[in-house]
Amino acid sequence: MTLYLNLAELLGARIEQGLYRPGQRLPSVRALSVEHGVSLSTVQQAYRMLEDSGMVSPRPKSGYFVSDHRQLPALPAVSRPAQRPVDISQWEQVLELIRSTPRQDVVQLGRGMPDINTPTLKPLLRSLAQLSRRQDMPGLYYDNIHGNLALREQVARLMLDSGCRLSPADLVVTTGCHEALSCSIRAVCEPGDIVAVDSPSFHGAMQTLKGLGMKALEIPTDPLTGISLEALELALEQWPIKLIQITPNCNNPLGYIMPEARKKALLSLAQRYDVAILEDDVYGDLAYTYPRPRTIKSFDDDGRVLFCSSFSKTLAPGLRVGWVAPGRYLERVLHMKYISTGSSASQPQLAIADFIAGGHYQPHVRRMRSQYQRGRDLMSEWVTRYFPTGTRVSRPQGGFMLWVELPEHFDTLRLNRALLEQGVQVAVGSIFSASGKFRHCLRMNFAARPTPQIEAAVRKVGETALRLLDEESADA
Amino acid sequence: MTLYLNLAELLGARIEQGLYRPGQRLPSVRALSVEHGVSLSTVQQAYRMLEDSGMVSPRPKSGYFVSDHRQLPALPAVSRPAQRPVDISQWEQVLELIRSTPRQDVVQLGRGMPDINTPTLKPLLRSLAQLSRRQDMPGLYYDNIHGNLALREQVARLMLDSGCRLSPADLVVTTGCHEALSCSIRAVCEPGDIVAVDSPSFHGAMQTLKGLGMKALEIPTDPLTGISLEALELALEQWPIKLIQITPNCNNPLGYIMPEARKKALLSLAQRYDVAILEDDVYGDLAYTYPRPRTIKSFDDDGRVLFCSSFSKTLAPGLRVGWVAPGRYLERVLHMKYISTGSSASQPQLAIADFIAGGHYQPHVRRMRSQYQRGRDLMSEWVTRYFPTGTRVSRPQGGFMLWVELPEHFDTLRLNRALLEQGVQVAVGSIFSASGKFRHCLRMNFAARPTPQIEAAVRKVGETALRLLDEESADA
Repeated sequence: MTLYLNLAELLGARIEQGLYRPGQRLPSVRALSVEHGVSLSTVQQAYRMLEDSGMVSPRPKSGYFVSDHRQLPALPAVSRPAQRPVDISQWEQVLELIRSTPRQDVVQLGRGMPDINTPTLKPLLRSLAQLSRRQDMPGLYYDNIHGNLALREQVARLMLDSGCRLSPADLVVTTGCHEALSCSIRAVCEPGDIVAVDSPSFHGAMQTLKGLGMKALEIPTDPLTGISLEALELALEQWPIKLIQITPNCNNPLGYIMPEARKKALLSLAQRYDVAILEDDVYGDLAYTYPRPRTIKSFDDDGRVLFCSSFSKTLAPGLRVGWVAPGRYLERVLHMKYISTGSSASQPQLAIADFIAGGHYQPHVRRMRSQYQRGRDLMSEWVTRYFPTGTRVSRPQGGFMLWVELPEHFDTLRLNRALLEQGVQVAVGSIFSASGKFRHCLRMNFAARPTPQIEAAVRKVGETALRLLDEESADA
Repeated sequence: MTLYLNLAELLGARIEQGLYRPGQRLPSVRALSVEHGVSLSTVQQAYRMLEDSGMVSPRPKSGYFVSDHRQLPALPAVSRPAQRPVDISQWEQVLELIRSTPRQDVVQLGRGMPDINTPTLKPLLRSLAQLSRRQDMPGLYYDNIHGNLALREQVARLMLDSGCRLSPADLVVTTGCHEALSCSIRAVCEPGDIVAVDSPSFHGAMQTLKGLGMKALEIPTDPLTGISLEALELALEQWPIKLIQITPNCNNPLGYIMPEARKKALLSLAQRYDVAILEDDVYGDLAYTYPRPRTIKSFDDDGRVLFCSSFSKTLAPGLRVGWVAPGRYLERVLHMKYISTGSSASQPQLAIADFIAGGHYQPHVRRMRSQYQRGRDLMSEWVTRYFPTGTRVSRPQGGFMLWVELPEHFDTLRLNRALLEQGVQVAVGSIFSASGKFRHCLRMNFAARPTPQIEAAVRKVGETALRLLDEESADA
């Protein structure tokens, strides 16, 4: 990637993250040129690019300013979960979300599906078809318990982008990220153990803790910088925590990217208290900034980070191909993987290895990143337009999920029931908490290319929320 | 199937099972005609068929006799495991078996691979290829957490053959039988619980118990009729057993089919002591007799049987499509399935559903059954010919595994190391025991169509065993 693109993305990210506020003056061309060791014209090119995208405006003789009209809605509050380990509830709500067979007549804003209707995935489908025609039928064999070697080589190569230097022998292919998570948790914890989690936190990972009999300790989390290190340290002092389970890059559901310094600080904390870290990076390659953010794993020097990811969000979930880099827990994760599903299906592994080796992965991900970034902007706008005043909205730095916070007493379970009649569904906030908090929040998916139907669906969510709020105040 | 084929298979099975011994007189044509309510000519046709296959010989004016030359080798002894729950060992040996990437230069007699080089699988590969070309790309979506409905409908239909009347809603599709087993065990047991298992027992299921922290109680098992009900009852009286985990049809590794009366008796026992049963039927459709044997599940009237199976042995393991019919544990199994891998890969499910619906499953399985039966006969013969005198051999009634018992002090781990240099590998017996018993036993796979190389490999196993035995007696 050229230097000016690089710089433009970096500046854009800082604006997105709120480091520069609307109306604020940006660093001078000269200062940036010195700071980044690039020519003046490179900086000017970067600023012109940001100007084109409407993020910055030049003022004569004063330099560049963050565009005023980018009035971003307020961010969700920092979460304040209960400060003690709890048994996880909410299984029934999660089951309702995942059990629902996709219905043509319902706009599913709640699910974690990426957009798979994109021409950049065609080579993958071609590979799958070709594999079925091969005389040696490689898709029918049991694969190695570690997973297909060609795929692990490609994954090791991809992981260089996040700063990880791993060999294929350090990786275990899994049946989606779910299996990576559950094998990792079981490799480290026994039933009854306490796991610290970000809050809100991915419901799948939390239900895994529940299913395995662990307790969750939710840690206050900032919607821009992630898990509170101060609160985490207090918790580590107070409780015998075995594992810290987090999604620091393009967090699900909040969308933040934890700043690099905080990632390092988190790792030091884990080292100090001798705790393992489960890092879920399933959305990491979908960060809107380039180069993609580093992982905690990339700083890990004593093998305590179990890094989990998959191709479910970057390529397609139906393939069920994930992986784990379990560090010092490799042997134990292998055992857990073996008893969980034996080896994973061969054909999707081979097809994905072909896809990456053929150079199709990066262009595909680039395309999706910018599609999702546009989706994020548009859906934020719709929420600002159609939702009740005072609605707070996350500011995702990657991925395709928006987190929306309604007034505190609002009940999104009730909202979702009212929406079903109108052919719309969202993910209710309570499933993202071990103890059923965030009832007033919801998550919406902006992966699909925007259509009038999707806008109409978001509008229905907002208007129905307004109606329910009005009914409540009439009752009161 | 016509009546005479039916009868011929029934008689053949009884001879195989040793109910009629070599040289013994078989029931008269008239008696069989009355007993089975078929015509005299039907019985005669059945006998002629058995005569053609060399199993029976007519003697003028005396009727039919079991062929004398079918000198079957002696059966393995009834197992006598330790009568107490143990922590499971042997993970290292299992890992060695499963970690080995298939090497072209090694004849792998140890693995659980079916023969996949058969033209009857072509329609399945065609389906897989076609699915990748479909515009709606069904293989890329998350499927329902229960699994694809079309597949569950077909599986419910197949299960009628084993006497099970289930609806698609009673089934959960899993990523291979491994996932079915581990979800079932976790649905019923907590770590520390005691699970009764047959002995020898499938290493994968036992390592699952180990991984989940359960204790195994091995029950004496007869090589023709399966788990000893008397010993099981004693164990149920003495220990707080939570689950009985068995493979009653075409047992792995012994190959027996538990007689129907014993299946019913086992179920009564489980009801009396209020214990769940995990029935692994993964080889059930590969029984050499027609109709295929019934399952314990088919007699289950209070939902205590968790029935697990997959297409890994009947079609191909690389597809990783299995299922579980969890009875009263459905909800809990669903949770365990969700946290284990989320939903399973879509494309293989759809392809298998097409394959069965298109009428390709039964002809394929019929072909494999007779290929495996011939493989069994041939490999038994080779063992008789090349192995040390006194070697005992199982008499499988289905599947493609032979269990071989060498003199009691013999060490098959040492044998396998010596064999590797000669390009042959077997499965060592100790992995089929929780406590590392059966070191003097081994399992060999006879799935592949026989070739001179395979015969040479079996011969190497036998001759190396002889050499090691000779060395031992020279040392002594």
